[in-house]
Order: sequence, then C-alpha cells, then structure tokens
Amino acid sequence: MKIAMIGLGKMGGNMAKKLIEKKHDVTVYDISPELRKEFEDMGAKAVESIEKLCKEAEKGNIDIIWSMLPAGEITENTILDISMRCAESKIIVDGGNSFYKNTVKLEENISKNGHTLMDAGTSGGIWGFEKGYCFMIGGDKRSYDFIEPILKDLSKPEGGYEYMGPAGSGHFVKMVHNGIEYAMMEAFGEGFEILKEKKEFDLDLEKISKVWQHGSVIDSWLLELCGALFEKEGNLEGIKGYVDDSGEGRWTVMESIEERVAAPVITLSLLQRFRSRKDETFSDKVIAGLRNQFGGHSVKSKKGG
Amino acid sequence: MKIAMIGLGKMGGNMAKKLIEKKHDVTVYDISPELRKEFEDMGAKAVESIEKLCKEAEKGNIDIIWSMLPAGEITENTILDISMRCAESKIIVDGGNSFYKNTVKLEENISKNGHTLMDAGTSGGIWGFEKGYCFMIGGDKRSYDFIEPILKDLSKPEGGYEYMGPAGSGHFVKMVHNGIEYAMMEAFGEGFEILKEKKEFDLDLEKISKVWQHGSVIDSWLLELCGALFEKEGNLEGIKGYVDDSGEGRWTVMESIEERVAAPVITLSLLQRFRSRKDETFSDKVIAGLRNQFGGHSVKSKKGG
Amino acid sequence: MKIAMIGLGKMGGNMAKKLIEKKHDVTVYDISPELRKEFEDMGAKAVESIEKLCKEAEKGNIDIIWSMLPAGEITENTILDISMRCAESKIIVDGGNSFYKNTVKLEENISKNGHTLMDAGTSGGIWGFEKGYCFMIGGDKRSYDFIEPILKDLSKPEGGYEYMGPAGSGHFVKMVHNGIEYAMMEAFGEGFEILKEKKEFDLDLEKISKVWQHGSVIDSWLLELCGALFEKEGNLEGIKGYVDDSGEGRWTVMESIEERVAAPVITLSLLQRFRSRKDETFSDKVIAGLRNQFGGHSVKSKKGG
Amino acid sequence: MKIAMIGLGKMGGNMAKKLIEKKHDVTVYDISPELRKEFEDMGAKAVESIEKLCKEAEKGNIDIIWSMLPAGEITENTILDISMRCAESKIIVDGGNSFYKNTVKLEENISKNGHTLMDAGTSGGIWGFEKGYCFMIGGDKRSYDFIEPILKDLSKPEGGYEYMGPAGSGHFVKMVHNGIEYAMMEAFGEGFEILKEKKEFDLDLEKISKVWQHGSVIDSWLLELCGALFEKEGNLEGIKGYVDDSGEGRWTVMESIEERVAAPVITLSLLQRFRSRKDETFSDKVIAGLRNQFGGHSVKSKKGG
Repeated sequence: MKIAMIGLGKMGGNMAKKLIEKKHDVTVYDISPELRKEFEDMGAKAVESIEKLCKEAEKGNIDIIWSMLPAGEITENTILDISMRCAESKIIVDGGNSFYKNTVKLEENISKNGHTLMDAGTSGGIWGFEKGYCFMIGGDKRSYDFIEPILKDLSKPEGGYEYMGPAGSGHFVKMVHNGIEYAMMEAFGEGFEILKEKKEFDLDLEKISKVWQHGSVIDSWLLELCGALFEKEGNLEGIKGYVDDSGEGRWTVMESIEERVAAPVITLSLLQRFRSRKDETFSDKVIAGLRNQFGGHSVKSKKGG
Repeated sequence: MKIAMIGLGKMGGNMAKKLIEKKHDVTVYDISPELRKEFEDMGAKAVESIEKLCKEAEKGNIDIIWSMLPAGEITENTILDISMRCAESKIIVDGGNSFYKNTVKLEENISKNGHTLMDAGTSGGIWGFEKGYCFMIGGDKRSYDFIEPILKDLSKPEGGYEYMGPAGSGHFVKMVHNGIEYAMMEAFGEGFEILKEKKEFDLDLEKISKVWQHGSVIDSWLLELCGALFEKEGNLEGIKGYVDDSGEGRWTVMESIEERVAAPVITLSLLQRFRSRKDETFSDKVIAGLRNQFGGHSVKSKKGG
Repeated sequence: MKIAMIGLGKMGGNMAKKLIEKKHDVTVYDISPELRKEFEDMGAKAVESIEKLCKEAEKGNIDIIWSMLPAGEITENTILDISMRCAESKIIVDGGNSFYKNTVKLEENISKNGHTLMDAGTSGGIWGFEKGYCFMIGGDKRSYDFIEPILKDLSKPEGGYEYMGPAGSGHFVKMVHNGIEYAMMEAFGEGFEILKEKKEFDLDLEKISKVWQHGSVIDSWLLELCGALFEKEGNLEGIKGYVDDSGEGRWTVMESIEERVAAPVITLSLLQRFRSRKDETFSDKVIAGLRNQFGGHSVKSKKGG
Repeated sequence: MKIAMIGLGKMGGNMAKKLIEKKHDVTVYDISPELRKEFEDMGAKAVESIEKLCKEAEKGNIDIIWSMLPAGEITENTILDISMRCAESKIIVDGGNSFYKNTVKLEENISKNGHTLMDAGTSGGIWGFEKGYCFMIGGDKRSYDFIEPILKDLSKPEGGYEYMGPAGSGHFVKMVHNGIEYAMMEAFGEGFEILKEKKEFDLDLEKISKVWQHGSVIDSWLLELCGALFEKEGNLEGIKGYVDDSGEGRWTVMESIEERVAAPVITLSLLQRFRSRKDETFSDKVIAGLRNQFGGHSVKSKKGG
C-alpha cells in the first residue's frame, strides 16, 4: 500500500523500516534531514515538508498518512495542517499516545475537512519491530478494513490488531492498557523489593525472575524484562530510582475518577512515580514537625542532622 | 525414584499422576479410601495411614515423602508425626503454601529427629499438570540435588525449578510471588472495570484481552486467563464479586511491614479482597453519619432505602 | 451593610438570618416564594427576580451581592446574569463550593463587566449559624476589606475569616480543606471499624469517642460529631454505608495529580466513597473469575449463591 | 493515694510531678540517680531499685505501682519482676504503649502471682501535664474504681479517662487511636503539600492553618499544632521529611488485616512513613529499569546522571 510515515523516531522509524521491508510504497517525513536521508537510502521516498507530503498525496502517491509524532500539540497541529492542505480525502492515522478526548475532538474537525482520522493505540515499544506491534484501533470501520494490510504486516510475527470502536476508543483502550502496565510494574517492583530486603535469605533475584518464567501464575512479558534487567544490571546499583510518567497513567486515573470507579492499585502506581522523583516531601516535613509538637519526638534537623 | 505423595487433592493428585506417568515408584496416602483406590488403579502403591507409610519408608521403599496437604496445622502435625515415627532419615518435602516462619521452625524440629525438610513453593495451579509446575525450593542444598529428578519431571514440559536458599526461603519466595499475583490480578480487574464503565465506547472485553496477548507490554499468563474468562463467562454476570484470600497475601503484607518496605499496591490488592466480601462497611456508615451531622446531607436510611 | 443574599437553602438561609439578626440591611432572593416570604417576615426585603435585585442594586440599596446557590452552572449563570444586568459596579461574592478554575474564569468575565467577584470558601455546615462560619476569601484585597464587616458578623462567635490571595484562591483553599476532611472522616471510619470488629473486647464506641475528646491527640470537631453520632444512632444499624461526594474531593485529587504531588490518603478516601456506592465491583468479578481459572478456587455463583 | 511511679522520662516524670502537686503520696524509681534526686527534691520518696520499691510496697507505703517505662521487654520484665518480688497483692498499671496481645499475656502471668495488672492507654504527649491526660483503661473493673482518684487528678483540667473493658482493651483502644492519628497527620501533611505546591496562589500556610481553627469542619488539636508549627518553623526548611513510627501504627494495620477489615487510609499513612526514610526505593529502580527495557526510556544513571 501507499503509506506516508510522519515522525521517524524510535517508534515511527522502526515502523517505516518494517513497512519498507514488507515491500509497501513508503513516503517518509521528519524534520531531521539526516533521518530523511537514512530512510531514503533504505528505499523510501522522503519529502521535506508537510506541504510536499500533501502534494504527493493529492497526486495519488499516498493513500494513508500515519503520524508517529509525540502526543500533544505537535500531533494535533500536524494532523490539522494536513487536513487543511490536502484537497483529496485521505485516511490519517494517529499512532501516538494522544489523550482520547482530544482524539474525539480532532476526528470531528478532520472529518469536517473531508478526511478520516483513525486512532491507533500502539503497544510493543522498541520490541515491536522484531516481535510485531499490538494495535488497538478506533474510528470508522470501513477505513479500518482499508488499512488492515498495514496493520497485518506491522504486527508480524507475534503482534496483533483489533478494531475497538468509534473514534477515540483505540487511544482509550491503549490508555487503560498503560494504567494496567503501571500497576503491573509496581507489583513487580514491590515484590522484588520485599525479596531483596529479606537479608537473611540472601535471595538471587535474577534466578527468581527466571524460574517464575516457567509455569508460574505471574509469568509475563514484564517478568521476562525483569529477568533481562537483573541479568544485565545485577542489583541495580547503577540505576536511579527515579520514574517518569508519560500522561497515560494520569489520564487513566482521572478517567476512573470521572467514572466513579475505585482503581486504587492503578492510582497508587501513579502516585509512587510522583514520589520517586522527590528526595523528601513537604507532607513528611509537616508530619515530622507535628510529631515534635505533640510528643517531643526528635526531629532530624537539616543542619548537620 | 521412590516417592510418597501425601494428600491427593487438586494439587497433590495431579502431581502423583504426573509422577506415575513418568515411571517413578509412587506411594500415595490420603484419608479418602476412594482417592487411594483411584491412584492404586493408576499404578501407585496406596497406604492406609501415616504409620504404614513410615513402615514402607523404613523398609527402603520410599526415599522422598512429599506432602501436598493444606497449609497449617494439618501439614505441620503430619510432618512432625512422620519425623517421629520414621526411624530412618528421610527427605520430607512440604509442597504446600506454608507460612515460611513456621517452615523454619518445623525444619529445626524435623532435623532434630534426623530428617530433612525441604520447602517447595509451588505455582501453576491446576494447569501445572499439563504445562509443568514452577518450584521454588528451600532447604539443604544436597537434598535439593537429590530430589532434582522429581522436580525435573514435575516441571515438564514448560515449568521450572530453582534452589532458593536455606529452609523457609522456598515458601518465602512463593509467598511474595502470590503477593505480586494479587496485585497483577487487581490491576487487570481495575483496568477491565474502567473499560467496561466507558459506556459510550461499548467495548468488547474479550476482544481486548485477546489482542493484548499479541505483542503488548502487559501480555501475561493472567491476561490469557482473562481472555479465557471473558470467552466463557461473557460479561461475568454469573460470577459474584466475592474474592477469598488464602494467607499468602496477608503474610506478604505483614512481611513488608516488618521489613519497613512500603508496598502499597500489593497491600491495597489484599484490602480490596477484604472489602469485596462485605455488602457495606461500618467505616462507611460512620462517614455517612458524620456527613449528616455536619452538613445535613441526607443519609440513606435502612428502612425503605 | 446593604447586602443581598441569593439562595435561601440550608447555608444561604442561615447566613441571611444571621445577618438580619446582626442588623444588616438584607435583601433576599430565592426561586421559592415561600422562602422569600419567610425571610420577609424576619425583616428582610425580598425580591422576586434577579432583574429586580439588580434594580435595587442600581438604586444603591445593595452594596454586596452574595450568592449561596449550588456550585456549577446555576451559580455561574446567575452571577454572569447579574454582572450583565447591573449598570453600577458591585461586589459579588460566590460563597458556594465552585471549582476554583471556573472561579478564575468567571472573575475575568465579571470584571470585564465592571464588577468584582470575590470567592468565599465557606466551612461550618449547618453549625455555622450558631458557632460562626469559617471563610477563606479570594479576590481583590480592597474588596475584601470592604466586605469584612459582613465576614466578621457571620463568623461570630467562634468562626473566622482570612484573605487567601487572588481570585480563585478562596475556593482553592476550601477545596483542599474538604480533601483533608474526606481523609479525616475516613480515618475515623476505619478506626471505629477496627474497634468494632474486635468482638472479644466488646468496646463501647460512644464512650471511646467521648473520652478521646478529653486531651487526646486526635481531639477534633469531627470526633465530637462521632460522639454525637454514636449517642444518637447507637451502632449505626439505621444508617446505610453509602457515601456521596460533592466534587471537592475529586477536584483535590485531580489537582494533586496535576501538581505531581502524591496524596495517597486523600485519594483513597475518595475511592472508598465510590466503592461504598456499589454492591459489588466488576473488578472483583474479574478477580474471582481468574482465581477460578488458574486455581480451581470455587466461585460464588449468582444463582443461589 | 500512695502511688509509685517507675520511669521518670518525659511522660512518667510529668505524671509524677502532677501527682506530687495534687498532694498524693508519691514514690519514684528511675535508673538515673539524678532524676531520682530531682523528684525527691520536689517531695517524692525515691527508691534506688525495684527491690526496694517492693519492700516499700510490702510495708504498705505503696498501693499502686505505675510503670511509664518504654513499651517492650523492659516494661514486661520490670512488671514481672515486681510481681514476683512483692508478697502483697498490688495494682500495677502499665501506662506505656505496650502491644495489647502482650498485655493480655502479662496480665495472666501477673494475676497468677496474685497481683492485678491494669493497662492504661495514655494520650496527650508532653501537653498532658498542662492540659490533662486522656486515659483508656483496661483490666479489672474494681481496680479501675480504686485507681480512679489518680486518673481524675492526672486528667485535670481538660483531660479524661474511661474504662474500656478487660485486660488489654485499654492498650488496644490506644493503639487504634494512634492509627487514626497517623492518618489524620498524613491528611494534614498531604493537604498542606497540595496548598504549598500551588505556586500561582503563593498561599500562606500559617494563616490557613489558623483560620481553619475557627469554625471549620477540620478544626482539631492537630490543626492547632500545625498552626504552631508554621508559626515557629515557617516553610519547614529546617525540618527533614523523615518520619519515625513507634509500633502502634504497625500493630493497628496488622490488627486490621487479622480482622479482615480494609483500612486503606490508616495503612497508607504507615507506608508513607516507611517511604519517608529512604532516599530511593529498590522498587522504583526496578520500574525505572523496566521502562528502559521495553521503551528505551532514558534511565537516570547514578554516575553523573
């Protein structure tokens, strides 16, 4: 199929590469001339601007425009830009981690301009290139059928894809997927910390994470990654316990609150990430100070304390 | 090898069956004559009492005595009983979910009587028979080497086994494994609830749980079970949201408190199970009553709702 | 002072009454003719519409317009309506639990029309009439000075008032106040449940809640209300454990997430309220179903359960 | 009354002083000769050993022996020692924060030796001397009546005392009191952190904590202490956010687990204290490492990272 990939970072680059290998007709755009050149050398057509990309599309050289830009304004503005420049109707796919409410609004705007927006929640990370991506697709069902050959090739050999429902539902399901992921990661983190702190048993976390991959109830891809992590990084002395978050955890928690659904474990996983980024909290200072007020408990002073 | 299996329930029965199939010399004991008969028919020797089992052991017909009785007093008393009856030194394996601190004490007692206690944390549930069990073994290292052929056969084709460390460490690692399992299950539960409550998207949970099994970061055996669950039970109308717990979650939380490790996600998973078993809580009655006290907020009266 | 009170419900009515008693010149408006009549009988001037209220204001018969309508559209629309109708500049006070971000926007709109919006976070509930209200005020500092005589009288004898900062800050501080309140109520709820479930001690919760009011570290107004609650309602058999929430808890949690502040206790207090309103959760159904899938644990069936 | 106070630390010392002021016949014992001397100068009789204290008791110079030693072995051993040395039956009061299950066992042992053990849960901290203590008393009811004059004087002018039930119930109620206290402190900590992080409003926490003391729903002694804290320590720059815990929070959480009561807010308050004492957690290292494994997210390296 004739597909354009916008954004050639870790995700978009790998996907473009995979599509080229699968003999699709791939046009690429990225602000980096080096990246454009690199993909041209692999066999893609490269365009220098969104304007030129739209011209190619109007000439019938592109059927599907797939954006793998970072979620947020850059994605929304680029897609809106395309929808206004392109005279001919195109299927535009947002494969990033956009907030689903924004997707719903964007789809409405895009369709006013005669185009179709599909939202593709994408999991698999840097492993997707090799193992195949997992796609959760929202939007118009007939357009889904049209882009299916692309989904099929990108998900090979072990990945998958599925139609979720109306516009926004793909990103919504991906968002909740990440909420679950946060909680599963926290579960492993806590479990391994409890194991590690049991000094008297002096447990070997690498061995444990590997034996659990054989027939235990918690066997999972994340557990495989734990095994790889302990193998590579030993007792993690070289890693700082500082955990970023990328929006989807926050949105999942806010969604659960809007739905009046109690999701304590997903929620706490997010809060632990916030906590990980601070040396100490104001809350704990208040409590330490209060204990001193009523009990005369000693307070650790900052000065030489 | 010459092995006796005590307790022919779901776990012990399947394990005995697997050992018989693998051509080991298996003696079985269970209080149920029907179960004993059943395994005799499969090719095991059956004994009618612990006393007789010990006699067989003394005759050299049993090298390893494996207990798959329910964790707690029955396991401890049976193992103590064996250790006192058997004149000849034997390896006794406790394959149940015993509390690791009790295992440490029991091992001390058993070794005074000249026997060896191994603790075998066992995961895999009813699927272990087919897929192979996952064993986390604690106790004497040479005895571990001795029982390895048994572990090898029971873990076939996809299971595994590993030596964890001194007595109690096998049960300890299995305990933490279950703590992680609680949190992973809660993570999936919460995630699917958030998906389900998004009425406007009318999402298909079975399709979602299946596509996630293809290349997503949260792919896991529990996710496969989610897929099977939704396939079989649809929207779970036939299942009551009542969740038991079996001790290991509680012990994991208590252990984390003793270690001064904050494990909020594992902990909350346990508390959610407690909550699931109540129609309403006294805590919520207090809060509802308080709101009425200060705000004149209406309270739902029991009488006529 | 010349003040108009809009909304004569529990809060607004009590405040109007208190202002009349303190000899202020009070105009009232409410959609209920009965309520208007009632306050007319107490000595207030009553107007039949916002339009007439504005006319009185233009005549110089009203200096301050105080809205005690329910938070949300009705408050915002009414205040906007006033700001457009009144030719002369007035101080409008929003004493409801409005979301502070809406207050910031509303204040901008109002000031374009030449009026001043003050936000008055108000605590004290139905007890405020007797004990005096607690006001957290945001907005223009000179207008704060102007309305101070009203704040002073409404907060008598034991209440208080304080200037917080720019527009929205009064409602913001009140919002966080309620977040703390949620957590304190949950703390008492949980504590009393732990006491009650200690069957072997058969503890008297009323006696406990009363002795704690004498010199204990947790002495508080909420504890006094606990005492009153147990005195009046015994073991709370007549109260349903169903807890509503009114927006401010949700906003506090969302604010904490926006700030990347981990506030687990305030957050969990909110989630417990959500949980209290359900007989069972889908999450727990998933978990119960999963346990059955891997462990053959019995599931409570809905049919005859 | 004739009372002996054992342990002249912050709590015991203040209580002895208060009893001397109230004209009771006070004997004191502490390992510190300086402290003994100090109280002798105030009008107490001082003894140099438990042995001598028991001799005085046998002579009829002491009716009640009140221990304010630190909870744990020292308290238990001292009380056991007294119970074995004293031929004549005495009422021994354990006023420390002993674990209630130990109190139940100790009481059984003590009563075998013919003595009576009363457990006095004591709140009020260093303020109890001035404001009066709050006592929760467990044990024999007639002995409670006997010691009441002491409780009355120690609780003056604003404190209180109450009979809770059988042996251990006083310490049990105090334990849960502290669990609630943990959660209330955490609630204030979190709330003030959310306020502080709202940079755009630049809020004055001292003013806020003081206005809330006037008529707000969260008015409480802890809030008064917050006010005093902010007054004294400003923005708490001099205080380290390191929070110790003293056993009773842990026991409350463990008790709630034994009771199968979900107490998420009390529990999380405890976990936050554990977290406060660490710069970073192993759990967060695992998560940071995992993110890098699957997503190529950058990890903060320890070396210059």
